[in-house]
Amino acid sequence: MLTLKALADRFGLDFRGDADTPITGIGTLADAVPGQLAFLANSKYTGQLAGTRASVVILGAADADACPCACLISGNPYTSFAQITALFDDGDDLPDGIHPTAVIAASATLAAGVRIGPYAVVGERSVIGAGAQLHAHAHVGNDCVVGEDCVLMPKTTLVKRVRLGNRVRIHSGAVLGADGFGIAFHQGGWIKIAQLGGVRVGDDCEIGANTTIDRGAIEDTVLENDVRLDNQIQIGHNVRIGAHTAIAGCVAVAGSTRIGKYCLIGGAAGIVGHIEIADKVTVGAMSLVTHSLTEAGEYASGTPIQPKNEWRKNAARFKQLDAMARTLNTLKKNGD
Amino acid sequence: MLTLKALADRFGLDFRGDADTPITGIGTLADAVPGQLAFLANSKYTGQLAGTRASVVILGAADADACPCACLISGNPYTSFAQITALFDDGDDLPDGIHPTAVIAASATLAAGVRIGPYAVVGERSVIGAGAQLHAHAHVGNDCVVGEDCVLMPKTTLVKRVRLGNRVRIHSGAVLGADGFGIAFHQGGWIKIAQLGGVRVGDDCEIGANTTIDRGAIEDTVLENDVRLDNQIQIGHNVRIGAHTAIAGCVAVAGSTRIGKYCLIGGAAGIVGHIEIADKVTVGAMSLVTHSLTEAGEYASGTPIQPKNEWRKNAARFKQLDAMARTLNTLKKNGD
Amino acid sequence: MLTLKALADRFGLDFRGDADTPITGIGTLADAVPGQLAFLANSKYTGQLAGTRASVVILGAADADACPCACLISGNPYTSFAQITALFDDGDDLPDGIHPTAVIAASATLAAGVRIGPYAVVGERSVIGAGAQLHAHAHVGNDCVVGEDCVLMPKTTLVKRVRLGNRVRIHSGAVLGADGFGIAFHQGGWIKIAQLGGVRVGDDCEIGANTTIDRGAIEDTVLENDVRLDNQIQIGHNVRIGAHTAIAGCVAVAGSTRIGKYCLIGGAAGIVGHIEIADKVTVGAMSLVTHSLTEAGEYASGTPIQPKNEWRKNAARFKQLDAMARTLNTLKKNGD
Repeated sequence: MLTLKALADRFGLDFRGDADTPITGIGTLADAVPGQLAFLANSKYTGQLAGTRASVVILGAADADACPCACLISGNPYTSFAQITALFDDGDDLPDGIHPTAVIAASATLAAGVRIGPYAVVGERSVIGAGAQLHAHAHVGNDCVVGEDCVLMPKTTLVKRVRLGNRVRIHSGAVLGADGFGIAFHQGGWIKIAQLGGVRVGDDCEIGANTTIDRGAIEDTVLENDVRLDNQIQIGHNVRIGAHTAIAGCVAVAGSTRIGKYCLIGGAAGIVGHIEIADKVTVGAMSLVTHSLTEAGEYASGTPIQPKNEWRKNAARFKQLDAMARTLNTLKKNGD
Repeated sequence: MLTLKALADRFGLDFRGDADTPITGIGTLADAVPGQLAFLANSKYTGQLAGTRASVVILGAADADACPCACLISGNPYTSFAQITALFDDGDDLPDGIHPTAVIAASATLAAGVRIGPYAVVGERSVIGAGAQLHAHAHVGNDCVVGEDCVLMPKTTLVKRVRLGNRVRIHSGAVLGADGFGIAFHQGGWIKIAQLGGVRVGDDCEIGANTTIDRGAIEDTVLENDVRLDNQIQIGHNVRIGAHTAIAGCVAVAGSTRIGKYCLIGGAAGIVGHIEIADKVTVGAMSLVTHSLTEAGEYASGTPIQPKNEWRKNAARFKQLDAMARTLNTLKKNGD
Repeated sequence: MLTLKALADRFGLDFRGDADTPITGIGTLADAVPGQLAFLANSKYTGQLAGTRASVVILGAADADACPCACLISGNPYTSFAQITALFDDGDDLPDGIHPTAVIAASATLAAGVRIGPYAVVGERSVIGAGAQLHAHAHVGNDCVVGEDCVLMPKTTLVKRVRLGNRVRIHSGAVLGADGFGIAFHQGGWIKIAQLGGVRVGDDCEIGANTTIDRGAIEDTVLENDVRLDNQIQIGHNVRIGAHTAIAGCVAVAGSTRIGKYCLIGGAAGIVGHIEIADKVTVGAMSLVTHSLTEAGEYASGTPIQPKNEWRKNAARFKQLDAMARTLNTLKKNGD
């Protein structure tokens, strides 16, 4: 049983209240029940503190006096909360050993302690590192490397020539190493360009459900260490994503683009091919990046949401915008 | 063999023509062949009525006189058509019983009449309701509930802690219950926040191919009853979607947002996180909702499609729009 | 071992340098090592030619004099490169024969030379053509046709009534033939419209990873010959896509729309339902096509990416655009 003092000691936090307060789970400020731990990290929710039924709240020092129950005081309550959630996780649920239905190529190499679920497939010459988990229907094609302690959730697919670092976590339906979209127009139709590269993923990356990362055309598509991708993201061939960059759901990155380190890309944004984005760039949701961004900072495109009848009038005027600007310039000159 | 009169009786419709007209299938007004039933529900297609080769047309009373063949007269021809299509559906094609290759955990509970296809997996402590169908490669992880008469099409995945109501239909490649995208920045890198919640889906929901619905961080992600999701939609953790809301393909909904009942969200729209959308809101295709919408009604954002050389000039002026507005205000003041 | 002269002869190219120069692989101009072949097809990269370590470069006649090594001279270096890549491809890696775990319906028909991987499923009455490859976990539902030399990569799904021409290549996670999104509102809730059509795909099409193509409501959804779809594209029911059209990743096409031949649709673009797009239309990335486009040419919508604080000011003015236009018109009249 976790107690208030045990958590405080483990994460180096101060606390107020009964050191032996038992903590049985995690809840939100609004809906926690007695025994649960909640957190306050966003001032938007400060009003919920007084009424919480949680037994313990993680919060900043400034909020401690207002807390109606025991508390853990953190310089960064959200980070402390993140660290504590791991203690309540029930893990990935894959039994030890290799399920008898798994199909493992004779030339594959499995380290000690690998766990493999039903109907998983491991291809020729692939190497699975110690402690890795391949859940049900995971597919590791030929010439892949799965690093130590990687987790491939059910129905993940590494098509071929995909090399994962250590502790990479891939969610269901993600496809790494499919052919990049390479075609050349010739005599009235398309010729396919064979995709001869692979995919390299650094340590500690996470890749969301149904995200796709294509193999490179000649060289590899690369994710550096600690890249975090949400669901349904498309990464084209030969893209390179810098360390610690986080990308929200449904973003599309076209081929051969380089994204820097510590970037934050908002949901459903688009990034065209063959450009470079500097370190520490933040891109707004649904923005389209059409040229290289050489300076750190926040960027956005798009127009605001409006009631449709108002929007329609403004949108119609957008088509006249250049003409309006010319008229305005003329009027201004005439007025000078 | 279905006849004109049999359909009229079954759905409470009036008819004109030979009561015994046999109906062997469904076609479009333009391409139906004799024996088929067509429908006219959109005045855009009224011109096709005179030339149809269909044996029977479902239509409104106002169009009956112009119909060159037998007809079924409905107050709502589209709804009547929808009801009749079900009679011509060939169903989901899954044989009775449990395929010998299915892997069912010892602690799982299967009700009577469950049908399970090849290579499906059912995890620990999961419960499958009467009449449910799990097609080939369906994956039901641990601690899930699949309600009565649910249909999980081939390669659907319920990762864990996913509870479906009755008559829920999930299409191939959909992933419910993957980890929400929860990360906290700490000492130069990302810490994962364990996702401790689940997904709850109400009765009569439909979830499209390759759609993803993440597990909640603490509490559940929720779809109320009769929510209809098209393909490739992304629903972030802790989102709540109200009853009878329909969402078109490729929409992205970020975490913790609440969408009301009877909403209609257009294709490829985006909805940011932590906002609330009222009941009966309609959002246009590819619009981005960046703040709460507290009133029912239609909303949109974006700019019109144009020939690229015209668009380019207008788009360039968008970057000067604030300056233009200031100049205009000055000119207006000077003119007053 | 391939040599310079052998390649020149095979593809009808001129060459300069030692006819016996061995070619062991393909690299980029910047990173090729001795033994490798590189190509120069984009003047953006001309500066890399002088420093390349490649043994052979494919280039246009104008660049031949500047080449520091042997070269192949082509009227279209990119096309020649595309053709040559195929010689270095390691293929699709599926062993001959039918894996003992494949589940093949008794009523299915398999031609000679079909290769089927582990855990693949072939449904009732489906026909697999000569030389076709069904990789691991490929699912071919009932009443499907897979043409000659088709390749279904791991975890592709043909739900039902999907007919592929010859040489179609489908990537992992793609779902063809799921129910179209057809619902009718009736008495406060939704009725499902049974989707009675199928999907027809022409010869030489390629369909990207996690792309979805729904079955038609009554008639079929159709891709004509040589259509090329990238990843995560959504094609609604009853869409028709003309021959040789190429669509980049994450595009959404709503139901019943017809796209012409030789169109190029940019990444993450949207196309609404029930419209027609002429042949040879090019649509820009993330543009939304809201009405029929009857003339060939390039089209776009959207606003430019900007630093966020500048963008915010301009976006706010967008809501005043109609008012600005009216003011401007008044000022102009007064000035006349």
